[in-house]
Amino acid sequence: MPFKCLSSVSSRTLPISDRLSLSRFRRRASFATSTIISKDRFSALKERLPNVTFSTNSYELYWHGKGQSYHPSVPPDVVATPETLEDVRTIMQFCVSERIPVIPFGTGTSLEGHVAALYGGLCLDMAKFQSIEIPDFSSADLPDPIAVVGAGVTRKKLNEALRHTGMQFMIDPGADASLGGMVSTGASGTAAVKYGTMRENILALDCVLADEEATVVSTGSRSLKNSAGYDLLSLMCGSEGTLGVITSVTVKLHSIPEYVIAAVCSFSSLYAAAQAVATLKLSNIPVSRCELLDSASVEAFNAYNKESRPLLVRPTLFLEFQGASELVLQEQVSNTQSICVHDFGGSHFSFASNEQDRKALWSARHSLYYAAIALRPGATDALVTDACVPLSKFASLISETAADVREKGVIGPCFGHAGDGNLHCILPILEQESADYLLKVEQVNENLIKRTLDAGGSCSGEHGVGYGKIKYLERQYGQGAVEMMKRIKKGLDPYNLMNPGKVVSV
Amino acid sequence: MPFKCLSSVSSRTLPISDRLSLSRFRRRASFATSTIISKDRFSALKERLPNVTFSTNSYELYWHGKGQSYHPSVPPDVVATPETLEDVRTIMQFCVSERIPVIPFGTGTSLEGHVAALYGGLCLDMAKFQSIEIPDFSSADLPDPIAVVGAGVTRKKLNEALRHTGMQFMIDPGADASLGGMVSTGASGTAAVKYGTMRENILALDCVLADEEATVVSTGSRSLKNSAGYDLLSLMCGSEGTLGVITSVTVKLHSIPEYVIAAVCSFSSLYAAAQAVATLKLSNIPVSRCELLDSASVEAFNAYNKESRPLLVRPTLFLEFQGASELVLQEQVSNTQSICVHDFGGSHFSFASNEQDRKALWSARHSLYYAAIALRPGATDALVTDACVPLSKFASLISETAADVREKGVIGPCFGHAGDGNLHCILPILEQESADYLLKVEQVNENLIKRTLDAGGSCSGEHGVGYGKIKYLERQYGQGAVEMMKRIKKGLDPYNLMNPGKVVSV
Repeated sequence: MPFKCLSSVSSRTLPISDRLSLSRFRRRASFATSTIISKDRFSALKERLPNVTFSTNSYELYWHGKGQSYHPSVPPDVVATPETLEDVRTIMQFCVSERIPVIPFGTGTSLEGHVAALYGGLCLDMAKFQSIEIPDFSSADLPDPIAVVGAGVTRKKLNEALRHTGMQFMIDPGADASLGGMVSTGASGTAAVKYGTMRENILALDCVLADEEATVVSTGSRSLKNSAGYDLLSLMCGSEGTLGVITSVTVKLHSIPEYVIAAVCSFSSLYAAAQAVATLKLSNIPVSRCELLDSASVEAFNAYNKESRPLLVRPTLFLEFQGASELVLQEQVSNTQSICVHDFGGSHFSFASNEQDRKALWSARHSLYYAAIALRPGATDALVTDACVPLSKFASLISETAADVREKGVIGPCFGHAGDGNLHCILPILEQESADYLLKVEQVNENLIKRTLDAGGSCSGEHGVGYGKIKYLERQYGQGAVEMMKRIKKGLDPYNLMNPGKVVSV
Repeated sequence: MPFKCLSSVSSRTLPISDRLSLSRFRRRASFATSTIISKDRFSALKERLPNVTFSTNSYELYWHGKGQSYHPSVPPDVVATPETLEDVRTIMQFCVSERIPVIPFGTGTSLEGHVAALYGGLCLDMAKFQSIEIPDFSSADLPDPIAVVGAGVTRKKLNEALRHTGMQFMIDPGADASLGGMVSTGASGTAAVKYGTMRENILALDCVLADEEATVVSTGSRSLKNSAGYDLLSLMCGSEGTLGVITSVTVKLHSIPEYVIAAVCSFSSLYAAAQAVATLKLSNIPVSRCELLDSASVEAFNAYNKESRPLLVRPTLFLEFQGASELVLQEQVSNTQSICVHDFGGSHFSFASNEQDRKALWSARHSLYYAAIALRPGATDALVTDACVPLSKFASLISETAADVREKGVIGPCFGHAGDGNLHCILPILEQESADYLLKVEQVNENLIKRTLDAGGSCSGEHGVGYGKIKYLERQYGQGAVEMMKRIKKGLDPYNLMNPGKVVSV
């Protein structure tokens, strides 16, 4: 049987929620791809790459076309797992000559349908790119706090390798994502308010382009500043596998802070809590994490953690402070308490410095995802919204969105990386979800994005565009910017083979 | 007389040092440009744009083709000074239809020949883009610390408009550059160690592309994070007018810190001083400025400021700390003193917190540029080097470069934004410089770049590429990245009209 470019996996093997909407995405390519890959040529590729696994196992295909996104799986035709840069180049050259789409894959933790093989093709699973190069921090020479890692290394694996060095990679998007994937989506998470996003935490990367030569591009440098030529590093960051495949990433490390204090404060309204956050930021108080949870989040936690003492069901702000001295942190906590309690009517302000107490204090935040999913027994997926507004608009955005969720009778908490103005809702979806409920969930998301764009914000703070959010880009930026993105895509990926149908439609 | 695309300004009107090397750059375009612009069509453009000044005054042309760069002036054919976005679009459409190169111009303070009209053409002086939109910080509503400014607004003008608000735009490259220009070169300066470079301080921008429609691109958002689509903002930042012309910039503002302490410490060697800096950074001590001056810098200052008490002629570290409380800063200063003095043998550690004393303490750093120029009476220009290495290599780089300057008998101080690993030398050049001396100056620069690239650094930390550093890009990144830059350039500027001959040669 010829190896087909449009997947042969039957939709009958898919969960029903996927089957419901799969037909929407089973479209044919509008660009020139082979519809059938010659079996002979494919065999020749396999012979040339004896160390590379090529899988057509239906579960593998299903997972690689879905990941953790709520979007339906659109499986690739084959999953290749290369081990070396030369493997990647050989595969890329083959795919270019055969006009086969290539979808880079890290750990599948992205959320906007990034890995769906909308036009079939080959999924390039980077799991075997596991090299980790870290300096000898025990050496007498001063080391640079930099690690060079293979694209498949996850952030937890990197931090495990850094154990006992006193250093850490600080970006924490929640999921144990691969570094290549985190660059691709421009990930960030709870620590971004202090350490920035992936964009501010990468120094260099290597990638392979989808041209006849499978050009290898090394960009960036090991220095902290770089003003030499176009910023290819930032361009690749957030490009979601649509411009090339990232093989290696050079990241910044940071010293693990000597002192950490966690604090929690309840508020009578989301609005007041969000205003307290904006004031903290304007006052230059250097919070290291700053998470705001609505009442529904706290209820979800109370229901999920029946053994813990229930928390007061109110909008709750979770804060963290890091520094080189306890004295400094205590002053920051004291100033924060004054703003939260005196200026914005917060209550139950408490804080802790030892690790165990800090974890206990933040437990509601830590278990939020699972607590949210547990709100709807049988839920297999969740639509996780992602929008980012200027801080002055965050109070309105989170209040109005939480009200929208309640009014529509949709289940799920609203919370946010409040210090960045980044709002999420976790809206669990059943395996066999009614069209009516799905519509309401989608309306919550639509309304959220509309409010966000009206406020001058971004339709994605950290999850990226995938194909789920392509429709918002023109509303956010206007036609000119989308046209500019298309020209970049065409210039770098002339055959539209890199993760086609994502970010921009060309 | 027809209006010619290659300048009619006689090279005899230029200073001799420019005449010496001008012939090198008087090359013809290798791409399709009109060599003669039809006078009729140009008259029609002028009629359509009665508010736009078009100058062919020879001094204007000379200055607009040179700016403060030591590179020779290569004057444009005409300088246009538009007032509105529509003016820019009309000019751009004209230049595209006539295939006339367009060179955007801010204040001319860039240093790598960025404004030289290598292929003739029209200089687009953005001086009249002077709008400043800042929030009402006295309002009861919480404002976003954001300003939206026209590309021609200089940083000092913006900060003047922010007087009495308690906020400031923090990037300080020394020169009073325009914001559009600072984005274009990816500028930074002494405050980058705390606040980052332009890239981390812009949220959005508008630009006009060189296509038939003169497409207006609005990119970025007003939110602190943005993961929606390709990062056009970072791509335009550092693109040096080669992809489009920036018309408006949205920048972040920061609260003016309540407490500031300046400190100074002498060291027995540049190496020890640079190692102290790397240790400070690894220790998470948040310095807000961190400048290292070699002995030649101190000598230059002593000679220039004869009225002041002479400083000890030694490598000297200038530090600044900012924060919300004196207590916090004192702890940071105390920890810094311990590292500088006890760990790395520093001496004469002194610090000051009131503004006048701080200024006095830092006076050597503040007057460095003029003190350096004064080292060679009659000097009209200076080659200001710019290279950036990982912090672990900065000690070697500054020591070896200072030695190289001494050994070659070249005059000029070496200093750096040590907290970023960014090294500069200011090497004054006489109006009638000997070829032999010029060669030595260029050798110092060549050697510096070679050491930098060998150390994994960047050939430009903050000045950009212009045409002076194009030759280093391939050595820094390899062929793949340069090819990728060329494809971006071709995709966005299909007729190679935007500041041609800069950044990449296509």
